[in-house]
Parts: sequence; C-alpha cells; structure tokens
Amino acid sequence: MAASDSTVTNKSWFLKEYPKGLPQESLFELRESQLSTKLDEGSDDVLVKVLYLSLDPYMRGRMKAGGSGYAQGFSLAKPLVGGAVGVVVSSANSKFKEGDFVLGSLGWELFTLVPKGQGLRPIDPKGLPLSYFLGVLGMTGLTAYCGLFDIGDPKEGETVYVSAASGAVGQIVGQLAKIKGAHVVGSAGSAEKVELLKNTFKYDEAFNYKDEPDLSAALKKYCPKGIDVYFENVGGSMLEAVLQNANTHARIPVCGMISQYNLEEGEGIHGLIQLIAKRIKMQGFLVGDYMTSPLAKSFPDDVSKWLKEGKIKYVEDVSEGLESAPQAFIGLLQGHNVGKLVVHVADDERAPKAKQEE
Amino acid sequence: MAASDSTVTNKSWFLKEYPKGLPQESLFELRESQLSTKLDEGSDDVLVKVLYLSLDPYMRGRMKAGGSGYAQGFSLAKPLVGGAVGVVVSSANSKFKEGDFVLGSLGWELFTLVPKGQGLRPIDPKGLPLSYFLGVLGMTGLTAYCGLFDIGDPKEGETVYVSAASGAVGQIVGQLAKIKGAHVVGSAGSAEKVELLKNTFKYDEAFNYKDEPDLSAALKKYCPKGIDVYFENVGGSMLEAVLQNANTHARIPVCGMISQYNLEEGEGIHGLIQLIAKRIKMQGFLVGDYMTSPLAKSFPDDVSKWLKEGKIKYVEDVSEGLESAPQAFIGLLQGHNVGKLVVHVADDERAPKAKQEE
Ligand SMILES: NC(=O)c1ccc[n+]([C@@H]2O[C@H](COP(=O)([O-])OP(=O)(O)OC[C@H]3O[C@@H](n4cnc5c(N)ncnc54)[C@H](OP(=O)(O)O)[C@@H]3O)[C@@H](O)[C@H]2O)c1
Ligand SMILES: NC(=O)c1ccc[n+]([C@@H]2O[C@H](COP(=O)([O-])OP(=O)(O)OC[C@H]3O[C@@H](n4cnc5c(N)ncnc54)[C@H](OP(=O)(O)O)[C@@H]3O)[C@@H](O)[C@H]2O)c1
Repeated sequence: MAASDSTVTNKSWFLKEYPKGLPQESLFELRESQLSTKLDEGSDDVLVKVLYLSLDPYMRGRMKAGGSGYAQGFSLAKPLVGGAVGVVVSSANSKFKEGDFVLGSLGWELFTLVPKGQGLRPIDPKGLPLSYFLGVLGMTGLTAYCGLFDIGDPKEGETVYVSAASGAVGQIVGQLAKIKGAHVVGSAGSAEKVELLKNTFKYDEAFNYKDEPDLSAALKKYCPKGIDVYFENVGGSMLEAVLQNANTHARIPVCGMISQYNLEEGEGIHGLIQLIAKRIKMQGFLVGDYMTSPLAKSFPDDVSKWLKEGKIKYVEDVSEGLESAPQAFIGLLQGHNVGKLVVHVADDERAPKAKQEE
Repeated sequence: MAASDSTVTNKSWFLKEYPKGLPQESLFELRESQLSTKLDEGSDDVLVKVLYLSLDPYMRGRMKAGGSGYAQGFSLAKPLVGGAVGVVVSSANSKFKEGDFVLGSLGWELFTLVPKGQGLRPIDPKGLPLSYFLGVLGMTGLTAYCGLFDIGDPKEGETVYVSAASGAVGQIVGQLAKIKGAHVVGSAGSAEKVELLKNTFKYDEAFNYKDEPDLSAALKKYCPKGIDVYFENVGGSMLEAVLQNANTHARIPVCGMISQYNLEEGEGIHGLIQLIAKRIKMQGFLVGDYMTSPLAKSFPDDVSKWLKEGKIKYVEDVSEGLESAPQAFIGLLQGHNVGKLVVHVADDERAPKAKQEE
C-alpha cells in the first residue's frame, strides 16, 4: 500500500453526477492518488487510515446539487464523505498521535488527510468493536435515544410502533422502548428481518409490511390498542396508516422518510386532520441538534450498560472492502441491509476484535 | 310568544339529512312545538331562553353520521345544538334561578330545556356583552390563547403567521402574538378582512390569499424572515406553502383545517419532510382539553384586562334572528363572516347593552 516510505497510494470514491431516482453504480468512480504521509509541522493536520465507514440514508439527500435542506450537497470534485472510524497514521496536531483511534467525517477512501484535525474525536473503545461507534454507540444509537426519549417519551404499557424497525436506528428504538416497559411493535421488509425483530430484538410483535396490502388494517391487527408512539423512519403510506391507528395524544418523532428519498416529488399525506381530532404531536428532529444536550451526556453510559447487560443486542451488516461501498449504499436504499450498514475498509492490529453477533 | 301562561311556543332547527360537500339550506328545517314552562319539582331541570348562539366550523364535522372523530354526530331526531348564552326562564335546580345568565350547550332554538341543568355555567357579564362569552372571553378566545401560548410559544421578534386571521380564533391569535412582541402576519379571504387585520387588529402585514396564485411566493414576500409560528386554521395548500417557508424549529399549533371540512376525501399534503430538515413541531389540540389547565385559569383575567386596555379589539359578525342560523352557518364555511359569527336570537333587558365596535 505504501508507494514509498513517505507516500501511500490512496483510493477514493467520487460521484460523477447527481443521481435521479435510485442511484446507479455507474455514477460512482474509484480514483487512485498518491498521498504524502509527511505532514507540515505546525499545520495541525492529521492523516487518518479509514477502518470502518458508515453508510446512512441521509447521504442520498446529499447526492443533490442543493443538498437535502439541512446537509450540504456532496461536491463532485471531492471524494464522498461520511461518518467513519480510523486510526491516526501521522499527526502534526498535538491532540492526536499515531495509533490513536478517531471518529470523524472521513472520505469514502483508504486515507483521509484531515486539515487541522477538524471534527476528529478520539475513541476509547474499552474492548468494544470500533464499528460500534458508528452505530449503537454512535450517531444512529444517539438518534434512537434522543428521538425516542425526548419526543416519543413512551410510558409503561403504551404501544410503540417502529418502521424500518430492524435497521440501524430502528433496532435500538425498539429495545429502548422495551426497557421503558412499552409494548413494542415493528415492521420491516423481509421475513429474515421480522425473525430478527422477534427473536433477537424481542419486539412483542413484528410484521413484513411488504406482505400487507392494507397497512392500516395491518396496524389495527398488530397494534390492537392503537399506537401511542410512532417512531417515523419511512414516511409515505405508512405514515397515513399510522395516523388512522394513532391514539389520543400520540407522539410521532419524525426521524426519517426513507420511502421518499429517491422520489423527485414526494407523496402527499392524507389524514393530517387526525392531528387535531387525536391531538397528535409530530416533531421532526436531527441528531446533530442533541450533541450538547443532557441526553447526549447520559447516552454512552446508558447504552454501554444495557449492551453489557444484554438488554440491547446490536446487529451490523458489514460490507467487505472499500470497493463495495457504492453497491452497499444502493442496497441500503432498497432494504438489502440487515442491521446497521458499515463498510469494513481496513484493520488495525491494536483494535479490539470484532464480536460476532450470536 | 307565550301560548298560555305556562307554555311557550318554541322554534327549533333540525337537520333533515347529513350534507355532502357544502351544506344546502334545504337540508335544514325549522319546527314549532309547545313547551311547558312549569318544571317538575325535584327534576333539577332548567329552562333557558336562548339569547346568542355560537356558530362554529367544527359543527360541519358533526353533520356526519359518525361525527368528526372527536365530536359526536348531530342527531337528526333532535334540534341542532351548540355553544350559546341564555337567560334562565324557570328553574327546578337550586344552582340556577330565573334571570340568571348562563353559558352552555343549547339548541338552535328559542328555548332549551336543560335536563338537570347539565353543562350550564353561570355568567357574570361585568358590563360586557353576553355574546363575548361565546367568543373572545369564551371558547374561541380560549382556543387562541391555549394553542398559541402552549404550543406556538412565540418569542419576541419571531414571525407568527395566522391563516383565517380575521376570524373568531385568528383575530385573537394575532393580537396575543403582538402582545408577546412577535412580528405578526395574517391572511384572509377578502379586501375588507385584510383592512380589518391591518387597521383594527394591528397585524404587521396582511394579505388576501385569494389574490395570490402562488401561496409560497406570497409567504416569502410577507414573511421575509421566514415563519417561526404558524397558527394553522385552514390546512391544504396553505399548510404546504408554510412548510416551505418555515424556519428551523418552527412550531405549528394545528387548530383547524377548515379548507378540508366540506371535502369527502381530504387533500394530500406534500413536503412533510421539511419537518425533519427544519425540526418543525406540528401539534394538534382541542380547546376542551385545556378546561382545567393553568392556562384556562389565567385566560379570563388576562383577556378582560387586555380588552379594557384596548390591546385586544374584538369584532363579531352578528346574524339577526334564529331564522338566519342555517344561512349564516353555510356562509361561515365560505368565508362570508367577518369576525366571530354569532346568531342574535333574543334580548333580555337585564343584559349589558352590546358595544358597537369602533
Ligand atoms: N433525524 C436524524 O437525525 C436521523 C439520523 C439517522 C437516521 N435517520 C433516518 O432514520 C431512518 C432509518 O435510518 P437507518 O440509518 O436506521 O437506516 P436503516 O434502517 O438501517 O436502513 C434503511 C432501511 O430503510 C428501509 N427502506 C428502504 N427503502 C424503503 C422504502 N422505499 N420504503 C420503506 N422502507 C424502506 C429498509 O428496511 P426495510 O427492509 O425494513 O424496508 C432499509 O433497510 C432513515 O429514514 C434515516 O434517514 C435520521
Ligand atoms: N382545535 C380547537 O379546539 C378549535 C376550536 C375552535 C376553532 N377551531 C378551528 O379554528 C379554525 C377557525 O375557526 P373560527 O371559529 O375562528 O372560524 P372563523 O375563522 O371565524 O370562520 C371561518 C373562516 O374560515 C375561512 N375559510 C372558510 N372556508 C375556507 C376554505 N375553504 N379555505 C380557507 N379558509 C376558509 C373563512 O375566512 P377567510 O375569508 O379568511 O377565508 C371563514 O371566515 C377552524 O378551522 C376551526 O375548526 C378549532
């Protein structure tokens, strides 16, 4: 990999043009370049070797010239970027030294030069797989934790319904709701995922929404007491069905609407008048807003503890090799991932060994 | 009116069948009956002469067999009912005596016999017109007060936008928002109403939405800093336009969606994905839920004080005579009312004289 003692060969994924509808693999290009490992003293720059790359639905929104309204559009002139963990290869920054594990916004590439170390955070893995800091102990776990606890606020015995329930965010939402004593129902897009919901994540009820011609009837069946909290991940017709089955004073944390991301014009939602009749609260949120909140403070301890106690199980879908990134991302938008999708780019012998999910 | 010393001739409006779309006058029927003014001792019943009848958009929802989801459907076998003020004609109830002014759910009729005096509340007008207790000091005022303060929570300098802004609820919302130091913008459906918004209710900006082919462009023009609080009275395309012009962390108290009430199937709303990008809170509410809240306690004193100080002006649209009720109600659903719509059914010499709006 090292081209000379002081340069390395880098490989980076670029987007050649913005996709319309479902992205095609042909729009992505892997380019090679040489990168010096010698950093200018005083530059404060940090060179990071990428170990795990997080692939997330919001990236689809960034694959537009104007971005998604809250996240900037990806530049076609630079490698694609995303949440990632890596290890410091060389550092001109006093806050980081070679061998440190770090979390930050890195490229879809082998190495990322991080100017002034900006946005990098050190990770102390404490024996946990590094990839967990992209998921259950990272962005998607915090999303579940803040959205559910701050906006959903489930009470014991209430019915919590989660869509995209086996995914990165959904699997944690359901288990957190169980910890709060709620009756938890989830839906997902395959029999395998439904099994996972019932047997691994211990959802009280789960169903494959693709098998249900009438989503409202399905919700009536699986949530016979109505829905008190709907953790919204998908939007569209699922949201309409939930409005019909919501209880008085239901809460809807609006986390995502993945069913809409590939559409040029989103669908119209009927039945919002139920917001009044049932006094429903629908509230959108972004995990980024919670970074300095009290919830973000309690999150790592709570979730590590629940992981250790086995109250939270965590399932990842690990895509092997940087080369696989575009295909894996396209699969995410079609429901091919089972659990949190990460790309395994490289290893580091100092990292804790990845756990196998039982 | 008195048929004999102990009976009176009553006239009552009935609905003959449930309307489809905009109700037609031919569906309403005025029926006469004789009513004894002698009440059985021990019955606790109260006979009330109706003075003012409140006509409100939610009644359209009750003109369906199944009701509106939160309010029961009107019975075709009984007179139409609604909020009203009246004066006690005779009473077998120790809590009420002849001549007392009362507020309650009374018929669209001249006299209502209220079994056990149920739901009747005494009114002490304190020199204010009795009709005010149906509006600014009653249900619609409380709706504005609770929806705006509890859910909208406008801060000084924020932009508050109100639809159906000159109506019963809207006119109070705008003036309360001004009292909180907000920049207040309203829309209404005629030039006369826009004048009222600007000159009487002192909205900072106002426009006739019927003159605007592009509602989103209109909102961009009239709310150049974006919308922080949208008090939702109408739904439909107006809501879509607001989502496009909302600021980060906007709040939308969802009070009503009158543009949808006459539709057999409501419209689909596009752009809800903005809830996430802009972290918007949309929350439906019913004034009935606030009856025992701290806000309901502070409401009468606050609003009477602001009325006296001239910080709140109140405009009513008084429809003359019980006979006019159906036509007035149908007009409400078409925007013919200017201000809070009430029907003036009868006078009582003990009542304070109605004020003329300057
Ligand atoms: N607000 C925030 O700060 C924030 C942060 C993170 C994530 N999110 C949002 O949370 C949601 C879940 O994200 P995640 O990271 O946990 O992803 P994920 O659930 O691990 O993966 C996406 C899943 O969405 C489902 N899906 C894909 N296309 C769909 C469609 N057309 N209709 C319905 N479902 C579809 C698929 O599962 P099925 O097989 O079950 O259909 C797919 O596996 C997304 O909407 C995402 O944008 C929001
Ligand atoms: N949640 C609650 O507890 C509660 C309590 C009271 C009222 N409300 C709701 O609050 C809203 C206002 O009620 P209000 O009593 O104050 O009535 P109002 O505004 O005094 O009268 C109704 C007004 O709505 C407007 N309108 C009628 N049809 C419309 C349409 N198709 N599209 C747009 N606007 C239309 C008209 O004004 P323009 O000329 O300006 O169009 C009309 O004058 C209603 O939606 C009502 O259901 C809710």
